[in-house]
Amino acid sequence: MHIQTFAAAALAALIPATSASAQTPVEPPTPASIIAAAPAADWRAIDPADLLVMDLAPDREGQARQVIIQLLPPPFSQGWVENIRTLAAAHWWDGTSVYRVVDNWVAQWGAGEDEAGQSKALPAGIVPVPESAYVTAVRRGPEDGYDHVLTGRGGQDGREDIVVSRWLDPYAIGAHVAGWPIALDSEGDGTAWPVHCYGAVGVARDLSPDTGTGAELYAVIGHAPRQLDRNIAVVGRVIEGIEHLSVLPRGTGEAGVYRTAAEHTPIRSVRTGDALPAAEQPRFQYLAPRSDSFARYLAVKANRQDTFYKVPAGGVDLCNAPVPIRRMEP
Amino acid sequence: MHIQTFAAAALAALIPATSASAQTPVEPPTPASIIAAAPAADWRAIDPADLLVMDLAPDREGQARQVIIQLLPPPFSQGWVENIRTLAAAHWWDGTSVYRVVDNWVAQWGAGEDEAGQSKALPAGIVPVPESAYVTAVRRGPEDGYDHVLTGRGGQDGREDIVVSRWLDPYAIGAHVAGWPIALDSEGDGTAWPVHCYGAVGVARDLSPDTGTGAELYAVIGHAPRQLDRNIAVVGRVIEGIEHLSVLPRGTGEAGVYRTAAEHTPIRSVRTGDALPAAEQPRFQYLAPRSDSFARYLAVKANRQDTFYKVPAGGVDLCNAPVPIRRMEP
Repeated sequence: MHIQTFAAAALAALIPATSASAQTPVEPPTPASIIAAAPAADWRAIDPADLLVMDLAPDREGQARQVIIQLLPPPFSQGWVENIRTLAAAHWWDGTSVYRVVDNWVAQWGAGEDEAGQSKALPAGIVPVPESAYVTAVRRGPEDGYDHVLTGRGGQDGREDIVVSRWLDPYAIGAHVAGWPIALDSEGDGTAWPVHCYGAVGVARDLSPDTGTGAELYAVIGHAPRQLDRNIAVVGRVIEGIEHLSVLPRGTGEAGVYRTAAEHTPIRSVRTGDALPAAEQPRFQYLAPRSDSFARYLAVKANRQDTFYKVPAGGVDLCNAPVPIRRMEP
Repeated sequence: MHIQTFAAAALAALIPATSASAQTPVEPPTPASIIAAAPAADWRAIDPADLLVMDLAPDREGQARQVIIQLLPPPFSQGWVENIRTLAAAHWWDGTSVYRVVDNWVAQWGAGEDEAGQSKALPAGIVPVPESAYVTAVRRGPEDGYDHVLTGRGGQDGREDIVVSRWLDPYAIGAHVAGWPIALDSEGDGTAWPVHCYGAVGVARDLSPDTGTGAELYAVIGHAPRQLDRNIAVVGRVIEGIEHLSVLPRGTGEAGVYRTAAEHTPIRSVRTGDALPAAEQPRFQYLAPRSDSFARYLAVKANRQDTFYKVPAGGVDLCNAPVPIRRMEP
C-alpha cells in the first residue's frame, strides 16, 4: 500500500486535531481560530525562571528530545516548587533517568533507589513540605466580585483572581487562576488546589505523612487521574515535548518500572529557563483567564458548532479545555 | 546510575497503578481488591465473535504486537459494526497500516487514499449508515424500574438494562449498559449513545452527512475527547494491547499523518475472534453493571480510602472508571 502524504492528510483531517479554519470564511469559530484571533493584550508572558527545561538523551534516530515544564506560580505547591528549583540549580537530575512508564497513567523520572534502598543524596536546602500545602485558602473578594488567592508577589496584598468556570466538573468547582486549571470546594472561604490533567507534573511520594521532596517526578500521559488531586502535589505541567514521554515503552516490571537499566531513558540535564544562555531561554505566553478570548475559547470548547460537529457537547470538563499556551520568538 | 529493579519498584509503587492490596489486611477496599473478590456470577463472557484481533508487524525488537478490540453490542452503532465484520471477513485491513498518530488524541489506521485520492476498494456489502444511528432510543421500564434499550437479541423483546450512575458527568447522564459506558440525555424516552473514553475505537469520516464506513478507524490515546460523542460513531474499545498504539511515534505531517511510508506501522491481519482457530480465540469477561461488585467498584473509584489516599475525590467521571475486563484461559 502506498499513500501520498497529501492524500492521506486530506483523509486524516476528517478528525480535526487543532487545525485552524482559514479556508471557509463562514465557518463558526473553533478553539484554534479564537486562539489565533486573541489580541496581544489577552496574553501573559511566562517567566523563563518558571520553566524547567529537561533534555533527554537523543532518540534512536539521534533526534533531540526536550521537554519543557512550567512550574506552578504562588501560592500553589510552593514548598515543592522551591525544592525543585534547588534540585535544578544543583544539577541533581543530570544523569538520572525516566525509569517507570505506565500506559494511561504516568511517566516517572529521577534517581530511584540503589540496591541498598538508598536514594541519591539530595542537595542542601531540600525541605519537607506538609500535607496542608496541597490546598490553598480562597479569599472572598466582595470589593470586585472576584474571589482570589494571596500570592505574596508584589507585597503582602499580591493576589490572583479566581475565574470560576460555568461548566460542570464532576470532582469540584472548576476554575482558572493565572492560566492554570484549579479546583475549589467552595466559592470563597474554602480551599483551592491544582488538578491532574494530561501533562500535569506531580511529586512521587511514599505513604502519608511523607509528601515527597520533588526529586522524583511524574507526568500524566493518559486520562486525567483526578483522584490524585489533593493527595499528591501537582507542581507544574508539560507545555512542550510531552510526546517524548508519552511514546516511551511501557515498563513491564512491578508497577510499570522498567526491568532493565537498558530500558531507561537517560536525562542529560534539567535547568530552569533562566539558567540557560539568554538566547536559549524559552519564551511562552498563556491566555489570561479573565480575557474575553478565554471566555470565548471555553464556550466553544463546550459547544463546537463548526462544520465537523453536528451535536454540540453541552459541557467540557476542566481537563478537556487546556489553557492555551504559545511559544514566542526569543 | 544503576537501579535494581526491586528497589526502583518499591519507590515507584508510591504512585499506585492497579496494585492489589494483599499486604495489609486492614486496608480498605481498592478497585483492584473489589475486582479480585467479585464472584463468578458477577462476570459476563464476551463472545469471541464480538472481538477484533489486530496483529501489527512485530516491533524493532521482533516482539509481537496484538491489539484486541471489543465491538459494541446491539443496539449501539450496529450499522458500522456490521461493516467492520464484513471488512474483517474480507481481510480488507491486511496490508494496510497505522498512518496517523496525534498525541493526546488518536492513532488511526486503514488504507487512506492513494495519490489520485482514491480509497482502497471496499468489499461488497458495505452500507452507508445514517447519522440517526449515532444515538439509540431509551425505553422507560416502569415494570421493574430499569430503563432499557431494545437489542433485538433473543427476539423482538430482547433488551439490555441501563444502570444510571449516581456520579456526575459533565457532558450527560452517565450510565452503563452491557458493560459499556453510555451517556443519556434523559432517563427514559430520550436517547443513549456510546462515549469516547481512553481506548475507544471510532469511525473516521468526511464531513456530514457522511458518517464513514468503518474502513478507517481510530483509537483514543489521550484524555477522553467527549466532544466527539454523537458526532462520530464509536464502534468498540481496545481491551488489550492499547500500548502498541499509544507508544507509536507521533506524526509530524498535516493533522498528525506520517510524512513517509517508512513511518507507518504495517497491519498484518485483522480478524474477528471466531475466525481464529478455536485454541487461539481470545476469551474475556466483563463485570456486569447491575452486580453488587460493580456498584462497589464505582463507589470506591469515586472515593478512594485506602492508605495512599488522604482525601477521597467525591466523584468520578464516566471515563475515569473503566469497566473491569479480564482475560480468561481458553
